Amino acid sequence: MDDMPAPPALIDRSVPSKSLPVPTTVSPQLQRSISQLAGAQGLTAGQTPTTAEAWREFVQAADAQGLAMVPLLESLFPHTVRKHVIAGVTVREITPGTLDPKKAGRLLLNFHGGGYLMNGGEASTAEAVLGAHYSGMKVISVDYRMPPDHPFPAPLDDAVAVWSAIAADRSPASVGVFGTSAGGGLTLALVLRLKALGAPLPGALATGTPWADLTGASDSYAVNADVDGVFSRFDGVAQGMASLYAGSTALTDPLISPVHGDFAGFPPTILTTGTRDILLSDTVRVYRALRAAGVTARLEVHEAMSHAEFIYAFDSPESAVVFGDMAAFFEAHLADA
Amino acid sequence: MDDMPAPPALIDRSVPSKSLPVPTTVSPQLQRSISQLAGAQGLTAGQTPTTAEAWREFVQAADAQGLAMVPLLESLFPHTVRKHVIAGVTVREITPGTLDPKKAGRLLLNFHGGGYLMNGGEASTAEAVLGAHYSGMKVISVDYRMPPDHPFPAPLDDAVAVWSAIAADRSPASVGVFGTSAGGGLTLALVLRLKALGAPLPGALATGTPWADLTGASDSYAVNADVDGVFSRFDGVAQGMASLYAGSTALTDPLISPVHGDFAGFPPTILTTGTRDILLSDTVRVYRALRAAGVTARLEVHEAMSHAEFIYAFDSPESAVVFGDMAAFFEAHLADA
Repeated sequence: MDDMPAPPALIDRSVPSKSLPVPTTVSPQLQRSISQLAGAQGLTAGQTPTTAEAWREFVQAADAQGLAMVPLLESLFPHTVRKHVIAGVTVREITPGTLDPKKAGRLLLNFHGGGYLMNGGEASTAEAVLGAHYSGMKVISVDYRMPPDHPFPAPLDDAVAVWSAIAADRSPASVGVFGTSAGGGLTLALVLRLKALGAPLPGALATGTPWADLTGASDSYAVNADVDGVFSRFDGVAQGMASLYAGSTALTDPLISPVHGDFAGFPPTILTTGTRDILLSDTVRVYRALRAAGVTARLEVHEAMSHAEFIYAFDSPESAVVFGDMAAFFEAHLADA
Repeated sequence: MDDMPAPPALIDRSVPSKSLPVPTTVSPQLQRSISQLAGAQGLTAGQTPTTAEAWREFVQAADAQGLAMVPLLESLFPHTVRKHVIAGVTVREITPGTLDPKKAGRLLLNFHGGGYLMNGGEASTAEAVLGAHYSGMKVISVDYRMPPDHPFPAPLDDAVAVWSAIAADRSPASVGVFGTSAGGGLTLALVLRLKALGAPLPGALATGTPWADLTGASDSYAVNADVDGVFSRFDGVAQGMASLYAGSTALTDPLISPVHGDFAGFPPTILTTGTRDILLSDTVRVYRALRAAGVTARLEVHEAMSHAEFIYAFDSPESAVVFGDMAAFFEAHLADA
């Protein structure tokens, strides 16, 4: 072995600074969103909080931004919210203005995003409202516990508890689970945990730009750093969120970073991302792992979209396509109750 | 109308310079390819030729690089080549070492890439060899005429002529057409032209990172400028190739920039790109347009791949997945002869 030549050193690629115009290749609504993001400092760009109290202040400011869009969301997507408790976990049941009678008995379960930190409480329902509207189905939005008080595995324990209660009550294959960002990661971790428990699985999954590699290894963390207008960087704030969530568990644990999981036997899964998304690679890597495991999977990518922008730019036709594709996928793959 | 406020100006996004490490999330073979690309100047990074003679010299140098990899390609993917002429156009019929008897009678047609300029003649068969190997099918590789002597519509005319001769001889639905980069654009333009002619269409298409918007409007021309190690920039050389190809025809013509075409009635289509690909957006926009037109379409994206790198990194497991997915798609969608 002494004679083995050392492998050649790998060469980094230098990319000069650049200016990204708002593209003409998307709708006026998405153009406006892209421009607004370019003119604002993203959530993950500031100083990283270092105490639980500072994280709570960070979350309060972030959630205020999410709550500010609720009135417009409510006017565009009329719905009712019924707050109750399932298996000890607070949930909000979203009923859209129009229920599709063909899908009666089927149900969707949503885990909100927000880095396992933000979008708790009243801020937790935006994606669930959109999912309910475009599918014509009831959605149970899960207000799972989060750090700094409740790191891993509390959020996952809550997900398992709610799922188990729902799956005991109806045909599990008639229930679809969806979530974006941390909510997408939690969706994948839930199914990995259910497999390990030998528990019944959902009928189908939809993960929007899932946070699937909390170690930061995905190539798009580098490529789309400062390109993404929503989740602009991994280093700093987002890395802090990952540590806060993982606590004493390794970031490489598949229940923290599900891209490392075994996807054999997963339900059919649709995955959505955008070309400016810092989690483009997380999404693509999960998609490839699902396909390699023989799972029915569909990858949807949208021009010039940043991380989870289909939720924020909810007035855009692109957002309607994202949630329309998700609804069609659930319609094709969920069993009747 | 005088009282209408001007729409707010759209804000460009500033992205600082960065260094992209070779990611740990891909195979060692693809890591080596990514590193080699980082250490070399890409084809499209130099001075733009301004005369036909200078373009010919540029092409000769580029084709020499492609021809240099032929011996390794031949040793890894044994095959025979039979050069002949169909409808006045030179073609090379590639027969893989192992033909799949289940697919006897089916046929693939390939249009090579190279910016409608490079990879003519003996350099035209690399992708066809890989397609033949992974599908176990014969592939007709079309050596269409190209600029500077033969700009649009000569390449498309050759594509139509070869297709028409083949389609007259066998069931058109038993023939699949594939191509990458300019070859992917030409594949799409061919089907747009066939629709206009009322001619029979192929049974299925595979376009690898198709050059579908020669105007440069796609967002990834900006986002992945200097990120892509193969097709590093649009401005300059590639823009020159686009002009040379279009000649006096508008770059927005759907037969030049097929993203502007009407995809209704297209055959099932699989599209492949990578997260570092400068044509990520071209690929995504064509995929979205196909879906919007109700066409059966599948999008495949690969971690950290640059433009058409699945052809150059032909020893990588990722390349095997790309061509394996393409072969499976043709197997699912082509009719028997």
